[in-house]
Amino acid sequence: MKGKFVTFEGGEGVGKTTQLAMIKKYLSEEGKDAVFLREPGGNAVSERIRAVILDRQNADMTGMCEALLYSASRAQLVESVIRPALEEGKIVVCDRFTDSTFAYQGVARGLGADKIDMLNSLACGDIVPDLTVFLDLPPQQAFERKGGADKDDRLEQEGMEFHKKVYQGYKLALQKYPDRMVDVDCSKDADSVHRQIVRIFKERGIVE
Amino acid sequence: MKGKFVTFEGGEGVGKTTQLAMIKKYLSEEGKDAVFLREPGGNAVSERIRAVILDRQNADMTGMCEALLYSASRAQLVESVIRPALEEGKIVVCDRFTDSTFAYQGVARGLGADKIDMLNSLACGDIVPDLTVFLDLPPQQAFERKGGADKDDRLEQEGMEFHKKVYQGYKLALQKYPDRMVDVDCSKDADSVHRQIVRIFKERGIVE
Repeated sequence: MKGKFVTFEGGEGVGKTTQLAMIKKYLSEEGKDAVFLREPGGNAVSERIRAVILDRQNADMTGMCEALLYSASRAQLVESVIRPALEEGKIVVCDRFTDSTFAYQGVARGLGADKIDMLNSLACGDIVPDLTVFLDLPPQQAFERKGGADKDDRLEQEGMEFHKKVYQGYKLALQKYPDRMVDVDCSKDADSVHRQIVRIFKERGIVE
Repeated sequence: MKGKFVTFEGGEGVGKTTQLAMIKKYLSEEGKDAVFLREPGGNAVSERIRAVILDRQNADMTGMCEALLYSASRAQLVESVIRPALEEGKIVVCDRFTDSTFAYQGVARGLGADKIDMLNSLACGDIVPDLTVFLDLPPQQAFERKGGADKDDRLEQEGMEFHKKVYQGYKLALQKYPDRMVDVDCSKDADSVHRQIVRIFKERGIVE
């Protein structure tokens, strides 16, 4: 592959949207041909699948059904968008990818890391990120940064347990994939985090 | 599981619809509590997924995306309908199941038998048919029985190549799963085939 494939991962409230906007601006100013994608979606088929996933409020969708739908959407995105862009030599940056399914469905929802590894490999084949930026902020801090959460609220506390499991899932992924996955401390201000990400992009040969 | 899970498999034109209607009538007359299902569909979530699969005319859906969507629909059907019915002691009869994905997507579309085995196991977990009735009729004969196909038509001949691969896929499944899968010769009349299926239901303990 001539191009480079980068994914951004992290829990709620870590500043992922901000960092993606900053790196998009940086790559644009550097004159790089970059494609920014967001899962699930990014093409007609995946958008249809996204609608089914989001419509699940009224339905009793099982965790495995949900994981398979995310994988179906991803399989389509890989073949119809990511692979062609990489073959053209572009930088592809994806907001969430396989590690999200690993952390959220595999670990936090308890489907099992091995099953999700299988599913990710079925959906993506040989398309594996060259670099995965994990925006690391413990969920308690991310929650506080988001502001205004009621710590005595039982539902929000249940939510916190879930987010802690997601965080553990990401930490497990970091151990499994030390070569491609980089831990970025997000407790600092956005500009410092951005500078660190640019440094990593350079070290990993995503940009010169 | 107190109940019994039976699947019917076979290519186009083998008489599957006829045989399913006959066995449904038979089980009803015997006073059995049987549930008849058809994939993909059978519940709200799976119907939504079915709509995406069927809407693919306008989209460039990849084979793996399609296989993952079938599996998502199946995962939901297994947990929301099949498992509860089996726990209640019912006979569940499904028109197509995992062996269809194996024969059509795995073998005929060339995704690979191993990948489809993985996918089927992810979607169904421990829910495996007690009996799979394979309605066996070589595609050339099934095609002739359907009647009126033009053998000089290039597209229909391409179709025939596809259906031959599906048939080979089913034969491969018969070799892989000799314990649960039974080959039923469908070159005879519908009544003879039905009597053979009833005999198999009795031999396999689906009915007394």
